[in-house]
Amino acid sequence: MQKFDSSMMDFEERVDIDDFESEVMERIYSKPLLIKRVNTTSQIAIVGANVCPVESLDYEVPENELVNEDWRSRRTVQIFQYILLKWAFALIIGLSTGLVGVFNNIAVENIAGFKLLLTTELMLKHKYYKAFAAYAGCNLGLATSAAALCAFIAPAAAGSGIPEVKAYLNGVDAYSILASSTLFVKIFGSIFGVAAGFVVGKEGPMVHTGSCIASLIGQGGSRKYHLTWRWLRYFKNDRDRRDLITCGAAAGVAAAFRAPVGGVLFALEEAASWWRSALLWRTFFTTAVVAIVLRGFIQLCSTGTCGLFGEGGLIMYDISAAKVVYSTPDILAVILLGVIGGILGSLYNYLVDKVLRTYSIINERGAAVKILLVIMISLLTSICSYGLPWLATCIPCPADASTSCPNTDVSGNYKSFQCPPGHYNDLASLFLNTNDDAIRNLLSTNTVKEFHISSLFIFFVAVYCLGIITYGIAIPSGLFIPVILAGSCYGRLVGRLFEPISKLDVGLFSLLGAASFLGGTMRMTVSLCVILLELTNDLLMLPLVMLVLLISKTMGDMFNKGVYDQIVKLKGLPYMEAHPEPYMKHLIARDVVTGPLITFSGVEKVGNILLALKNTGHNGFPVIDEPPFSDAPELCGLVLRSQLLVLLKGKAFSKDRVLAGNKVLRKISELDFAKAGSGKGLKLEDLDIQEEEWDMYVDLHPIANTSPYTVVETMSLAKAAVLFRELGLRHMCVVPKSQGRPPIVGILTRHDFQPEHILGLYPHVRFQQW
Amino acid sequence: MQKFDSSMMDFEERVDIDDFESEVMERIYSKPLLIKRVNTTSQIAIVGANVCPVESLDYEVPENELVNEDWRSRRTVQIFQYILLKWAFALIIGLSTGLVGVFNNIAVENIAGFKLLLTTELMLKHKYYKAFAAYAGCNLGLATSAAALCAFIAPAAAGSGIPEVKAYLNGVDAYSILASSTLFVKIFGSIFGVAAGFVVGKEGPMVHTGSCIASLIGQGGSRKYHLTWRWLRYFKNDRDRRDLITCGAAAGVAAAFRAPVGGVLFALEEAASWWRSALLWRTFFTTAVVAIVLRGFIQLCSTGTCGLFGEGGLIMYDISAAKVVYSTPDILAVILLGVIGGILGSLYNYLVDKVLRTYSIINERGAAVKILLVIMISLLTSICSYGLPWLATCIPCPADASTSCPNTDVSGNYKSFQCPPGHYNDLASLFLNTNDDAIRNLLSTNTVKEFHISSLFIFFVAVYCLGIITYGIAIPSGLFIPVILAGSCYGRLVGRLFEPISKLDVGLFSLLGAASFLGGTMRMTVSLCVILLELTNDLLMLPLVMLVLLISKTMGDMFNKGVYDQIVKLKGLPYMEAHPEPYMKHLIARDVVTGPLITFSGVEKVGNILLALKNTGHNGFPVIDEPPFSDAPELCGLVLRSQLLVLLKGKAFSKDRVLAGNKVLRKISELDFAKAGSGKGLKLEDLDIQEEEWDMYVDLHPIANTSPYTVVETMSLAKAAVLFRELGLRHMCVVPKSQGRPPIVGILTRHDFQPEHILGLYPHVRFQQW
Repeated sequence: MQKFDSSMMDFEERVDIDDFESEVMERIYSKPLLIKRVNTTSQIAIVGANVCPVESLDYEVPENELVNEDWRSRRTVQIFQYILLKWAFALIIGLSTGLVGVFNNIAVENIAGFKLLLTTELMLKHKYYKAFAAYAGCNLGLATSAAALCAFIAPAAAGSGIPEVKAYLNGVDAYSILASSTLFVKIFGSIFGVAAGFVVGKEGPMVHTGSCIASLIGQGGSRKYHLTWRWLRYFKNDRDRRDLITCGAAAGVAAAFRAPVGGVLFALEEAASWWRSALLWRTFFTTAVVAIVLRGFIQLCSTGTCGLFGEGGLIMYDISAAKVVYSTPDILAVILLGVIGGILGSLYNYLVDKVLRTYSIINERGAAVKILLVIMISLLTSICSYGLPWLATCIPCPADASTSCPNTDVSGNYKSFQCPPGHYNDLASLFLNTNDDAIRNLLSTNTVKEFHISSLFIFFVAVYCLGIITYGIAIPSGLFIPVILAGSCYGRLVGRLFEPISKLDVGLFSLLGAASFLGGTMRMTVSLCVILLELTNDLLMLPLVMLVLLISKTMGDMFNKGVYDQIVKLKGLPYMEAHPEPYMKHLIARDVVTGPLITFSGVEKVGNILLALKNTGHNGFPVIDEPPFSDAPELCGLVLRSQLLVLLKGKAFSKDRVLAGNKVLRKISELDFAKAGSGKGLKLEDLDIQEEEWDMYVDLHPIANTSPYTVVETMSLAKAAVLFRELGLRHMCVVPKSQGRPPIVGILTRHDFQPEHILGLYPHVRFQQW
Repeated sequence: MQKFDSSMMDFEERVDIDDFESEVMERIYSKPLLIKRVNTTSQIAIVGANVCPVESLDYEVPENELVNEDWRSRRTVQIFQYILLKWAFALIIGLSTGLVGVFNNIAVENIAGFKLLLTTELMLKHKYYKAFAAYAGCNLGLATSAAALCAFIAPAAAGSGIPEVKAYLNGVDAYSILASSTLFVKIFGSIFGVAAGFVVGKEGPMVHTGSCIASLIGQGGSRKYHLTWRWLRYFKNDRDRRDLITCGAAAGVAAAFRAPVGGVLFALEEAASWWRSALLWRTFFTTAVVAIVLRGFIQLCSTGTCGLFGEGGLIMYDISAAKVVYSTPDILAVILLGVIGGILGSLYNYLVDKVLRTYSIINERGAAVKILLVIMISLLTSICSYGLPWLATCIPCPADASTSCPNTDVSGNYKSFQCPPGHYNDLASLFLNTNDDAIRNLLSTNTVKEFHISSLFIFFVAVYCLGIITYGIAIPSGLFIPVILAGSCYGRLVGRLFEPISKLDVGLFSLLGAASFLGGTMRMTVSLCVILLELTNDLLMLPLVMLVLLISKTMGDMFNKGVYDQIVKLKGLPYMEAHPEPYMKHLIARDVVTGPLITFSGVEKVGNILLALKNTGHNGFPVIDEPPFSDAPELCGLVLRSQLLVLLKGKAFSKDRVLAGNKVLRKISELDFAKAGSGKGLKLEDLDIQEEEWDMYVDLHPIANTSPYTVVETMSLAKAAVLFRELGLRHMCVVPKSQGRPPIVGILTRHDFQPEHILGLYPHVRFQQW
């Protein structure tokens, strides 16, 4: 331990990074800091190919005089207000996410509808080159808009957003991931991207959108625009904001898939790292609001006032018309489907990972290169969508077709493309459609021979490859729809192959194929099951869907991790796994404590605090009480950087080294300590400390968290990690085991538990698996 | 702190109870112990009106030399085996629970079918008194059998079982709640009870059955019958057993409602206190197996080989035939339904609580009184079921009835009862049916006028009251079915009243009524929603079901707790709530540490250990290293009573006070420390320690858990409670803040966090709400 003192400052050895403030510092002071441990920790995240700082979140409830005073001063009315507000916020999140979902849907359907109508009309006039030009031109325009938004306004909006939300709910806030600019770009970028005919979905972006909305609502009034309400301070902490964002993520899935229960389960199974039943209920309420908003708009739009929106009703891909009968050969086919689906799913993950790594290098070269990449992929997609249908032979329309064939409106099962009247092109019915309609066609039941096996194969290969190369370009892009598209096509293909011995409808095979791919890539179980149920409204398929999900997840897990986990890792976000690594059992907490520790006295010199804040990246500082304030040195609490900044700004200084008592409480209220939006808090440069104040004292007792969680230095690292993870800590104090030593050994943060850090210090433990 | 020494023994002041071993001790030694704190803690539970001891469970992973050695010695094959076994066990649990569910179903349908057929036949011959005699006689016989099983073999099998399972998963093992006798009685008692026409369900008992099966499988081989396999020891700990029981509870719901996803969510939302995504998956697998078993048997029985079973298919109450259309008046009606449902639900809870308290006094008087109570309730039920239909007027059969009217088989919508041909008695169709069929009738759609409003009212009042007075008698009795029965009747009643202005089918109103009652009593959200969905197969009702559940839960929560929480509290089980009480913020950990602490030296005298084990009820003992083994006294770990007993049994003693090193490891293996079934572990009386061995020494280092979780004495009690709850601890060491004091202040257990204990010590904090 090293007591902080300006005279002892040694710039060579001083710095120990635990959070992104060091990065911020670096920019503020424009002088390079010597970062010792930078290679062993992973505090730098790659978001949209930009290197961005991350901030750990703190879910610990601080307990100090100030907080207690604050609670005491609240009247019952205020507490009631607080509870009411929680629900009001959930309501607002549900409403807004639902509205965005509807808006997104209407916009995509109408833009894509216009584009497809234009192409179809030109095709009917046999102006094939013009049709391609119109089609590719529209796609290119939309794609470029989406890419420009992403590249210039909010690079963090690129990609799915689910990995970042997942990391946030685990306690890692990547820079600007939930900012309002990100929200804006996510909404419009997603609309343009999906309308541009890319093999991307709107589901991931909707989850991100829901989370952004929740985060903005959670920040409440903006200080910048002087819109701060006193009651909003209740939510100005990481804990409440995490709850809101969980609700937002669930609302996003609910709005994207029209699956309220699936949304809750998605948030629970995939997104959230902590959960409690009160939150379950609030999330459920949020998604119920989304469902009601969606249903209201679908009813409103059923008269045709919203263009193409609202035809599907609450069930997006209804397959309940098919009769569910299956016997042994079907079950064998389903098992095979699951096995291959799992393998192809994990291959998908592997390839996405490789492509992402390549793209992140390309994207680093600047906005123009980013946009160029998008343009290239867009052209490729257009060529595939327009070119490949020429390979298909025209199929005569079935006599018993329930819809007109070839159909004249933009969606539908039977596209005429280049075919003569009374015939349709099955590949065009898949390629020259919105993704939603393509899935609907693939899932259509009682239409066994609708698609040629060769067409299904071509479409499968094309979608599989396009899906992989599209994720990672600078547009908001969900992974669900590509996977469902490829999976349902693959399922239908298998269904066709097994047709001679199978009783099951090919449409149902298609659903099982989608399930197997989803299981193989996303590795979720219950939530996927419920989402698929809510998408297709066929409860009798449940046993088979469960079976196929179990098999494909098992297969996939043999090869690699789920796609979101992979991306979290790739982005370098310091994610805390629920289970500690086996080798952590062989280390103790003290082993990973590194770097000199900086502590403060209970009543500390202003100058010392300023220097420590300026010269280190630490976020938490232990406060040690020493004589005369205690008999022997003892740990009296933990202060945070943000608290110190507020305290210094408040200037509750005294000339002598004495306890301040109530004086601090009168100058500063709990409200001042409310956590600001990410990156918006008080900064060191905002302080205005005079030279003569440097030698004054400030009492840290009122703001120090008096009950920090501690572990004894000999606690096994595995158990310390469990404590850290389960309680959602940001700092954990390591205390000495034996007496007669300074009262604190060090502080552990999230980074100290990262495998990179531990294995950097102790490379040999990697092989100690048990 | 008081070092344990036989010379210091003071029988007046010694005893501090923290677990049920003191109770066991009391029986073994047959001499009363002076229990000081017994009134402030709640270590005695009332199970089936018997006062029974409870045991806390320990979910902490112990870390000591022995465990480490054990892990090191395991080869990869063994570890693979371990993982495989987990899944194998989940498979077995799913299979067995599914089979029990099928057996239960077939048995109930056939026994009740026979009874109803007999009654109907006698009715058709106008032998009304004989019919009543036959009906009441059958009921009485079945009821008495169920009660006798409960009263004489396993009193713990009475009631729902869900509260006890919930408590187990929270870390409280009530005596014999998961024993094999309980399982046996639960299965057969439930069959007899349901067949006896009681207003009880098989759902709660199925959950309990699933948990019992899981527990028995988890205990694996029985030592008693010399059926222990070496690999089963992996599961011989509370943590693995908890996981298995979670799977079992989910499988129970899945088997009872044929709702696999609902089962997972029930286990997640209501039953389990800890959760992680790996467990979610395993639970999902278990319920998938249950679904497959059920489906297989339904297909097998569809030919009629199983009597009356298997008619319903996988969907128990299919209402998907009804068209879901609703507008503003319907939504208002639904809101009203939710509000009144919530109020009636909480009233139900209140009355159940009162009745349970009364019954527990009655049931204390012995087995005969228990059976007498069951007989009385059975007679009352028979009189109601047979007598009340006479109040109904005969209704002419509808012309467009889809089934024959009056129907001749035992189930069906139209019972002729006393009515002339071509007429039916609507009340008899509800009363003289199995509960399942009654619900199916109430939920039947497109049959608006089938039931008179007056009949619905009579049935509602009767079922509501019978449900309340039946729960608590000595038979296995689920709460779901009574609540669904009353709720769906109430919903249909409201539907009939709103018929003039409503578009919604009365059958759908009935579903919403059931949802409102379930929400009002059980206070679950997502799981109920999914269970109702899986029961009725009508996804389009989802928004309305969500709405009604939210409203009724909110209303109910204003008045009291959920019914299971109430019963847990009533039974005195020390349940750890997820959130600490507000007043805990005002106390620190040291405040609730009571009683003299007993510690051991790292190398302790055998006699001291024996005396401590004999004379206290403590379960965990801190081990303090003292010179010469360390420089100053320091906490080196925590040993458990069970570990000490094994160590003493192994007799790894030495004459001198020296470290034993590997000697202990050679004599005792980790296998010996495997946790036995509840109440089956090694007991003090099993030891055979010679007089001369009393003065020998034993080294506690190899078995002491070297990484116990600790809190500093000044940690706020609220935060200590969060730590205790989140990590699933049984013991938490409180260490001193300042130096120069003994290294441990005390041990906190589950009982120390119970409101009764805290408020017993500090009555004034009750009013410090914030």
